[in-house]
Amino acid sequence: MSGTLYGVGLGPGAPDLITLRAARLIEAARVVAYPTLAGGASFARSIAAELIAPDAREIAMDVPMTVERAPAQAAYDAGAAQIAEALEAGEDVVCLCEGDPFFYGSFMYLFARLADRHRVEIVPGVTSLTAAAAAARRPLAARNERLTVLPGPLPEAELRARIEGAESVAIMKLGRHFPKVRAVIDSLGLTSHATYVERATLEAEIVRPLSEAPDTAPYFSMIILTKGADPWL
Amino acid sequence: MSGTLYGVGLGPGAPDLITLRAARLIEAARVVAYPTLAGGASFARSIAAELIAPDAREIAMDVPMTVERAPAQAAYDAGAAQIAEALEAGEDVVCLCEGDPFFYGSFMYLFARLADRHRVEIVPGVTSLTAAAAAARRPLAARNERLTVLPGPLPEAELRARIEGAESVAIMKLGRHFPKVRAVIDSLGLTSHATYVERATLEAEIVRPLSEAPDTAPYFSMIILTKGADPWL
Repeated sequence: MSGTLYGVGLGPGAPDLITLRAARLIEAARVVAYPTLAGGASFARSIAAELIAPDAREIAMDVPMTVERAPAQAAYDAGAAQIAEALEAGEDVVCLCEGDPFFYGSFMYLFARLADRHRVEIVPGVTSLTAAAAAARRPLAARNERLTVLPGPLPEAELRARIEGAESVAIMKLGRHFPKVRAVIDSLGLTSHATYVERATLEAEIVRPLSEAPDTAPYFSMIILTKGADPWL
Repeated sequence: MSGTLYGVGLGPGAPDLITLRAARLIEAARVVAYPTLAGGASFARSIAAELIAPDAREIAMDVPMTVERAPAQAAYDAGAAQIAEALEAGEDVVCLCEGDPFFYGSFMYLFARLADRHRVEIVPGVTSLTAAAAAARRPLAARNERLTVLPGPLPEAELRARIEGAESVAIMKLGRHFPKVRAVIDSLGLTSHATYVERATLEAEIVRPLSEAPDTAPYFSMIILTKGADPWL
């Protein structure tokens, strides 16, 4: 009897934004898996730390942060092989995912490698998108409004066109792309409609009008831009 | 000492997709508020039902489903007035919100009416967007992909242009707009990339390739369309 792989969304970072279903699965897990970035600590593991049984076996996938995809692909290949081995031995595996497994998450790389041969269940989680909107106190979209999610690494011209044509926009993964994104929003005259949010729901959370944002942004940061066409009334 | 209004996201429908924070707030609540649609039962209340204390006071806002906005606005005015009265009497109020309060939720109408005079905290929730992606087994977006969320009531020409220009798309609130949306996707040759999801995570959930979807769709339904540019590998 083969085991089940659970892709479990943990939410944006505050441990109490984990869902009841995710908490139960993690507490019962005998094997947990998670990515670590470039040898550092695992953000996903840190969110769920209090729920992991002390004697659970842990599969850490060390994913290098490189522009080329081959090294990351090799890390997911190796992680998927370890997970497959546990599943084939009849063990369930709970894979810890920041946010939601299918929203800019690394779990989809495991899903692509394992879902055709193993039972895989996805447990959706709270995304950083709505956590950042809550922190910014900016409702994302209502009624018939469109919402666009853009990654900061997109080329400047594309960002400009997409932001210009959008209603509500979230620009994620700012990191070293922050100055470029900020310049685009500024040149469109939209800075006063934008809020900068860093590490939403964590103790280190920073929320500021974009005009007062810090000069540098980490990867886990976002701009929420709402043009205010709808007065929310 | 004035009370706090909590806008609490409940997730897409399965009670165990409520977050730990939301569950604790609801269990402790002495006053809960929620919308009901056109005199019917409250979907939000049904998700949280097991957590509401039997002696909690309940403020139901009966929101009419009309195309004109004035009747709904009047309902939110009346609900906001009742909530304000409780807050001014020093009571906290937990407002139950399907999905996430700031993602196409009715809570933003209360927020607009109350946030300037009262303490308001937002508790983000799992959205139907990622719950539907999980049900469809379609990762929404990875790496530098864009994600577009479109409401089904948008005009046909706009839907066509937005879907054509998008990478991953979710089309929400299908209801009576389903035949129009389906025709647009069909005419763009994208039907084979689309999955229909109805009432994600509820017992009545339906998940089918769009080509095999039912003829009619309820309001709580969605199409997840991913063009598969990224092989997720």
